[in-house]
Amino acid sequence: MGTVLLDMSVSLDGFVAGPEDDVARLHRWVFTGAGTENMRFSDELLEVLDDIDAGAVVAGRRTFDLASGWGGNPAIKVPHVIVSHDVPDEVASGVWTSFVVESGVEAAVARARDLAGGRTVYVLGGADMAQQCLNAGLLDELQLHVVPVLLGKGIRLFEHLEAQTELRLVSAVPGAETVRLRYEVVN
Amino acid sequence: MGTVLLDMSVSLDGFVAGPEDDVARLHRWVFTGAGTENMRFSDELLEVLDDIDAGAVVAGRRTFDLASGWGGNPAIKVPHVIVSHDVPDEVASGVWTSFVVESGVEAAVARARDLAGGRTVYVLGGADMAQQCLNAGLLDELQLHVVPVLLGKGIRLFEHLEAQTELRLVSAVPGAETVRLRYEVVN
Repeated sequence: MGTVLLDMSVSLDGFVAGPEDDVARLHRWVFTGAGTENMRFSDELLEVLDDIDAGAVVAGRRTFDLASGWGGNPAIKVPHVIVSHDVPDEVASGVWTSFVVESGVEAAVARARDLAGGRTVYVLGGADMAQQCLNAGLLDELQLHVVPVLLGKGIRLFEHLEAQTELRLVSAVPGAETVRLRYEVVN
Repeated sequence: MGTVLLDMSVSLDGFVAGPEDDVARLHRWVFTGAGTENMRFSDELLEVLDDIDAGAVVAGRRTFDLASGWGGNPAIKVPHVIVSHDVPDEVASGVWTSFVVESGVEAAVARARDLAGGRTVYVLGGADMAQQCLNAGLLDELQLHVVPVLLGKGIRLFEHLEAQTELRLVSAVPGAETVRLRYEVVN
């Protein structure tokens, strides 16, 4: 059965977004090229995605909304399971076909496992999703792209955790500016 | 002039101590051997200390008290500058000669620089000291021993920071269980 992997960018002080959901600094490594016309995904991101080999994506509704549903056409060309109590209009109407909706994290991860067909279930956030998945014991691995900045405030990745969780460091790979830390969840 | 380096062990979720100041899990990598009789510093710690090449140590009063003043005989055989508004009895009485006391972080780091004679000023915590040093712009480098555990609660290293701080990743070195991340403070 495929691995369930949380993969997120985080500042060294543990924030996945600054005030007002600002992720520009934290996601800078994801893009290359100046201006909206020439901007494209960085080679580093493409390597990461290739390495993850996702068969399905799980994202929270807030992440879906903040990303404007990736315009209905997410970069990762696999089914996206959105955790939400209601179905976004574009999904309900059948216009956006990349998405399915589940109302809780356990159902969402189970659905994503089915859809992934043995490939990785890629949990891409946000923080609330990550916390719910950790508390429900749904994650096999964590991968953090640690961005070399102290934001000082914003949305913390690790909060509201109900138990101590042991991990095992799998790898630590420096990128152009980040370091990618990969952990296996031990218990 | 010597580098001012903060060096601390931290859980992946950003805690430098668990509830009730428990550092047993976070400092496990520092020791080797079972039982109080056979316990000694790990080779990994000795390598780290050798690499730091401290000429003076700076520690907060709370850290000093929690460590019971290292019995008056700290492992690192250089002057220790303690930040405190009053002078611990053993220091005042002249019995413990490894320590000097300054009442604020700026004075403490300046004093440590003088005492270090060009070697590294090693700021070993705690969290409050680290935050004060960051806010006062006193640190040249940060080194974190990231322990593969999510504690869920305790004392956070990065809180109360007043400004966004850019860093540069210098190195990421996996140890027996931790990963040692070293950063230069850019601004």
